[in-house]
Amino acid sequence: MNQAVQGREGVELAPNRYREILEIAARMICEKGYEGASIQQIAQACGLTKAGLYYHIQSKEHLLVEIMHYGMDLFEERVLSQVESIPDPLERLRTAMAKNVLMVTSDRTKEITIILHEHATLTGDELDRINTRKKRYVRFLERSFSEAIATGQIRRVDPKVATFAFLGAVNWIYKWFQPDGHISEEQLVRGMQDVFFGGLEPRSSAKPEGS
Amino acid sequence: MNQAVQGREGVELAPNRYREILEIAARMICEKGYEGASIQQIAQACGLTKAGLYYHIQSKEHLLVEIMHYGMDLFEERVLSQVESIPDPLERLRTAMAKNVLMVTSDRTKEITIILHEHATLTGDELDRINTRKKRYVRFLERSFSEAIATGQIRRVDPKVATFAFLGAVNWIYKWFQPDGHISEEQLVRGMQDVFFGGLEPRSSAKPEGS
Repeated sequence: MNQAVQGREGVELAPNRYREILEIAARMICEKGYEGASIQQIAQACGLTKAGLYYHIQSKEHLLVEIMHYGMDLFEERVLSQVESIPDPLERLRTAMAKNVLMVTSDRTKEITIILHEHATLTGDELDRINTRKKRYVRFLERSFSEAIATGQIRRVDPKVATFAFLGAVNWIYKWFQPDGHISEEQLVRGMQDVFFGGLEPRSSAKPEGS
Repeated sequence: MNQAVQGREGVELAPNRYREILEIAARMICEKGYEGASIQQIAQACGLTKAGLYYHIQSKEHLLVEIMHYGMDLFEERVLSQVESIPDPLERLRTAMAKNVLMVTSDRTKEITIILHEHATLTGDELDRINTRKKRYVRFLERSFSEAIATGQIRRVDPKVATFAFLGAVNWIYKWFQPDGHISEEQLVRGMQDVFFGGLEPRSSAKPEGS
């Protein structure tokens, strides 16, 4: 993502203002769909003219790309970089889940996260670049699961299936979770960790595998 | 969904042909997005003229609604109705997961499933009707989890969180699973059941909850 953008008069646009534009655009795209949200509407919501907005973005597709890279920036800052150095692989995975859940439920980042996962529009190189960043996290999870299996902290499950079950359980949250509902964010984090890492079958009468 | 549709000359369109149109349209919408796939392109892919396609559908939005109801028909036929009557709640849940996974991986139903979960376009009554059908499955899962907790077959987890972790893990599959990849459908089903129901922590040294 550009850290600063040249404004109409060559004045530098503060990074915060640029991020705000990306956040507003993300909200509009989530609401109306990528095709449905016009540049005119996005500009208006940002308090800019259409020409003013085009000073900061090259095109609508570029705007989408920028939103996604911003989403990955946020994700790497708030999740990946916070947990990568945790030595214990199970603790690393549990903490990654907690921080990842909060990314999906947080008001400010929710729409950015949704766009990161529903980007039917991007193709070619741009899509490759985003996917490369996403894959870093997938590989990090796979490695952590493999490590936790090696240390005997978790059972011998398929690390790839475990990784995508983790991602599915966490990323699906935006489809159903209501911040003002019966479950608090804290309960959601605990509940997800409990279901996912604790497993469902009771400890005392574990069924044989494959039953 | 309409079971049969009146064709141009008043000739009844076979239900199979109608379903085929919905499947082709679903594939095009997944490929190009709802806004991106034109009625002209969908008609062409179906081997129909635009006017010919409009004989079978009222509008593009109606086509999307019909695809979703068709998806729910398939889902209820292949998943819900197959498992609802299984008396043992844990077996019911494990079988529901297996059949649900196959819905998501199956070539014929994959795109229909994707559209069911990424329908930013529908609003109002149409959206309510689809959501009511989806909620039937959500409640079925929640009830089954609660029952399995009551029988002591699974631990006292939050049935709602368990339900959405289940749905997330399963529905996310279309984002990553490659039918010709290293994991077979059979391995995927077993792996998902293993991770989700068997849990990750080893049986012998279960960590205390909340750790």
